[in-house]
Amino acid sequence: MTMWFTENHTKDVYFAFKAKQLFSTESDFQQIDIYQTKDFGRVLVMDERIMLTEKDEKIYHEMIVHVAMAVHMDAEDVLIIGGGDGGALRELQRYPGIKSIDMVEIDSVVPEVAQRFLPGIAGDFLDSRFTLMIADGLKYVRTTKKKYDFIIVDSTDPFGPGESLFTREFYGNCFEILREDGLLVNQHESPYYRSDAREVKLTYEKTKMIFPIDKLFQAHIPTYPSGHWLFGFISKKYDPLEDLQAERWSKLGLDTFYYNLALHRGSFALPNYVLKLIGKK
Amino acid sequence: MTMWFTENHTKDVYFAFKAKQLFSTESDFQQIDIYQTKDFGRVLVMDERIMLTEKDEKIYHEMIVHVAMAVHMDAEDVLIIGGGDGGALRELQRYPGIKSIDMVEIDSVVPEVAQRFLPGIAGDFLDSRFTLMIADGLKYVRTTKKKYDFIIVDSTDPFGPGESLFTREFYGNCFEILREDGLLVNQHESPYYRSDAREVKLTYEKTKMIFPIDKLFQAHIPTYPSGHWLFGFISKKYDPLEDLQAERWSKLGLDTFYYNLALHRGSFALPNYVLKLIGKK
Repeated sequence: MTMWFTENHTKDVYFAFKAKQLFSTESDFQQIDIYQTKDFGRVLVMDERIMLTEKDEKIYHEMIVHVAMAVHMDAEDVLIIGGGDGGALRELQRYPGIKSIDMVEIDSVVPEVAQRFLPGIAGDFLDSRFTLMIADGLKYVRTTKKKYDFIIVDSTDPFGPGESLFTREFYGNCFEILREDGLLVNQHESPYYRSDAREVKLTYEKTKMIFPIDKLFQAHIPTYPSGHWLFGFISKKYDPLEDLQAERWSKLGLDTFYYNLALHRGSFALPNYVLKLIGKK
Repeated sequence: MTMWFTENHTKDVYFAFKAKQLFSTESDFQQIDIYQTKDFGRVLVMDERIMLTEKDEKIYHEMIVHVAMAVHMDAEDVLIIGGGDGGALRELQRYPGIKSIDMVEIDSVVPEVAQRFLPGIAGDFLDSRFTLMIADGLKYVRTTKKKYDFIIVDSTDPFGPGESLFTREFYGNCFEILREDGLLVNQHESPYYRSDAREVKLTYEKTKMIFPIDKLFQAHIPTYPSGHWLFGFISKKYDPLEDLQAERWSKLGLDTFYYNLALHRGSFALPNYVLKLIGKK
């Protein structure tokens, strides 16, 4: 069935593309759809919001993984909150030094759908280093005794099933389960449309009270609202620029679609209006 | 009249917003429309393509002016090709060292419409340093005897009235009328959608054969297709990073919405896929 998929960016603004629906299901948590498109390849949609497209997913997943890994090259134990599509998992699996990757995904249907319809994205769920837990992220970080070097908060937006991942309690618990040189990267929404910008500010204010180092970095992700996307580099010890392990990262020889070391540095240079939004100017 | 304005990004992708049409006219060169919107303020549309929005225009105009001016702080004579909306003019007028600003705009209706409907953007057309010439940009650079320090190619897209501004002859003539330390900045389209990316590559290949220094820089401009926009820093002598006059620029004390010196440096850090597109990786 070919139709026009539309996503509202505000009440009065939307983005649309011609799409063929390949799959649709209602999980316990959300509506999940897979579309085939000409310009973006396959598209994963949840509750009518674009979660990823084959064309752009490398931008998102490389930025949510490599920026932190190039700083903390000794990270061994990594926790992914959300990320059921397996894209962050795939990028992490490229680091031979990583010993364990735990994923806490609330919706068991997401990994199933990703492995079936997005095999190029979904990483290797059978990797012996990998553990998938179908659970609530907030409850997991509240109760686990395991310590991590790197936490990735690869959540949906701050409403619906991802909502509890935007709370102060969640980030306080993340702080507790990180080792003393641990760090966290979260998807941090867009600074552009007014209601998205408010979420950026709220999340930043929560995390900066808990972690000594909290810096935002940006990427161009055209199929997300506005195309201007932020991530948080939230850390106990390492600074994303001063502690960048450029030489060690280069030696790994990873072939990346979007990320490189110059872009790593450049991505932390934010426009004035974003600096103002987070009270940095 | 309230309606939905739509702009196609490809045959199968479009962007849409609710808009009230304030003005519409057909000039000798193009269809020109002004819309009022809730999220973007007023929007200038030519031949059904968004030329600027009040929300985003500072991003575009600051990047097309300040990146070059912060490198060539002694620029005195500036030429704007296109730019009839007056936004680049406005930013240039903030530099007290500039002695002349010449604008060559093919369509006399554009400055009229901008001054009437976009007065916050349109700069000061009565400035004694400013000369407006209604003429073809290619013919002007082919015949003028005047020498310039800085040329801004603030053109429409590479089809329709702006087409001749994307030719090798045009850039060859620009080289001739620039002083020996002169430089040029052009709007360089987006690397994202396939047909736009082809234009990026073609324009880059033309200019790099003519100028010794040719580097692309990027900005987030959400209301342009993909939101990932490129500019060319095309220069006879000055490098955009090595020759950045950070201290002198700071002393001017310009209040900018988007541009700052860290972002200046960061904007030249391009993603791998863009570097590949222009043969730099």
